[in-house]
Amino acid sequence: MREYSIGLDLGGTNLRAARFSPEDGLGEARTVATRVNMGPDAVMEDILELVGQVRAEAGPHQRLRGVCLAAPGPLELPVGRFHQPPNLAGWHGFAMRDVLQPRLDVPLYLENDANAAALAEYHLGAGREAKPRIFCMLTLGTGVGNGLVMEGRIFDGVRGLAGEAGHITVDPAGALCGCGNVGCLETLASATSVVVRAERLLTEGRAPRLRTLVENRGLSAALVSKAAEEGDADARELFAETGRALGMAMAAIVNILDPEMIAVAGGMSAAWPLFSPSMLEELRRRSYVFRLAEDATAFERPCRVLRAELGADAGLLGAGLLVFLER
Amino acid sequence: MREYSIGLDLGGTNLRAARFSPEDGLGEARTVATRVNMGPDAVMEDILELVGQVRAEAGPHQRLRGVCLAAPGPLELPVGRFHQPPNLAGWHGFAMRDVLQPRLDVPLYLENDANAAALAEYHLGAGREAKPRIFCMLTLGTGVGNGLVMEGRIFDGVRGLAGEAGHITVDPAGALCGCGNVGCLETLASATSVVVRAERLLTEGRAPRLRTLVENRGLSAALVSKAAEEGDADARELFAETGRALGMAMAAIVNILDPEMIAVAGGMSAAWPLFSPSMLEELRRRSYVFRLAEDATAFERPCRVLRAELGADAGLLGAGLLVFLER
Repeated sequence: MREYSIGLDLGGTNLRAARFSPEDGLGEARTVATRVNMGPDAVMEDILELVGQVRAEAGPHQRLRGVCLAAPGPLELPVGRFHQPPNLAGWHGFAMRDVLQPRLDVPLYLENDANAAALAEYHLGAGREAKPRIFCMLTLGTGVGNGLVMEGRIFDGVRGLAGEAGHITVDPAGALCGCGNVGCLETLASATSVVVRAERLLTEGRAPRLRTLVENRGLSAALVSKAAEEGDADARELFAETGRALGMAMAAIVNILDPEMIAVAGGMSAAWPLFSPSMLEELRRRSYVFRLAEDATAFERPCRVLRAELGADAGLLGAGLLVFLER
Repeated sequence: MREYSIGLDLGGTNLRAARFSPEDGLGEARTVATRVNMGPDAVMEDILELVGQVRAEAGPHQRLRGVCLAAPGPLELPVGRFHQPPNLAGWHGFAMRDVLQPRLDVPLYLENDANAAALAEYHLGAGREAKPRIFCMLTLGTGVGNGLVMEGRIFDGVRGLAGEAGHITVDPAGALCGCGNVGCLETLASATSVVVRAERLLTEGRAPRLRTLVENRGLSAALVSKAAEEGDADARELFAETGRALGMAMAAIVNILDPEMIAVAGGMSAAWPLFSPSMLEELRRRSYVFRLAEDATAFERPCRVLRAELGADAGLLGAGLLVFLER
């Protein structure tokens, strides 16, 4: 009997579910709004409802192997407990497994969404050919997500809280982060941080091209990117600063783990031409392996750094895939 | 037949060798001066000579299972190639395995010395009871070494160059490091850095207690530590700065890996009472897991941070032990 899994991606805005099988890939996703304010129990009902719908659609001639839910962190594993999740206000302390597993007759897997996305990118995206032994992904979105895949499997850390590189300090005296620290990577490399810093530029009467562009629309990271592409020097420097922050954090990752590949995902990765030159320069300067690799007699190539390929479905895909990788 | 291994610790000053068995532990070490300036081939002969001596001593009624050499980094593995090693000047590009393995009739294992020390500390020192799933050690000596042990085994990275946390940038505009970067942890947390910074204090006419102490002796990290213990405010601030640098780098490690235990080893760890308060404060501020753990409903305890137990034999012990852990 053919087997499939159900992957779910729980976001602060939308809850999505789709069937997955290694043969057919990801089915069409069902999407409902995440009723964050109704509390976790209401959303757990929505999750079970979606699982029921996908299951009904698949019919009785295929076997459901398991369900995996990818959720925003910080998510303690394996219990699936949220700890002050910035995108799920009021869910602090809620432990998903206790509520969901008893209502399912198949195994339930829980995972941090950035980890699930990294798993998909490793197996089906940027990592699919090289199958890098140590793979790291940074997802530049509302925040900065991070996932690690080692020897083909997610590296979760002791409590599921590995992969928080978005909270590496890159500027010890920098801006306040949502986590309470100052100068985290997230304060300089998330889409949110681009908007916040662009607002400051506009307040200071700088970024002339951006000022013209913004007159007709609301300010967004994409618009700042457009201004930079059109030559706005202040907007360009803003992305260069993002690149330096990314390079600094990547250097810490490289110094600790000596990985084989780092992929950059998320909406912000579209601005790759704007931030990657300063990112790579900073990485080369701040990472021991990269410095050593500058020598001609050193190893063939240091860690590869490249754009992710999968886009917004990576978390959902990773959730579906994870069920097939677990024994 | 009883089995033993031979562990060797190749340092910039001394080369040491000892037999090891799980039953009897580490035998008495034989030590010769490392003839760094005679070049790697001469030292390889010394290594083989020491192996022969230890083997003769063990006699024919015990079986030699393997030989493991712990050497200073950067050491590319598994080939054992040095890349501009700061403590072995002129050895750049030398690949040990090619020279040593053909002259041995037992398996040869090569490892970075900080990794070998971490392995010993995990199995026989600070980690022996808790057996932390993810264990990290920082060795504060001439430089800052770093080793990772995951699930009981050394984590080497893709090329053997994982565990270079000594080169994490903790002060983006800091002092020049031997690696070519500025503001590495090593520039603020090695014994060398304590002496360099203390010299600066003395040049500036500060650190009065240290000035008195140093009149009778040469300046050393131990003397700066003594001055701090005796109340010298400038010397105390120097160690507080070391602590902040350590806390910053540990926070990066915690944010990336979510480890269970971090041990601090090396000569400088004797100054624990002087640097650990600011280290732990900075770690709490800069690490997401530690911040979350401040909440009473969060997980029981975050990563444990403590002093290593084994002392200067850790590298040698780890080398001997490694042979028994490899299959």
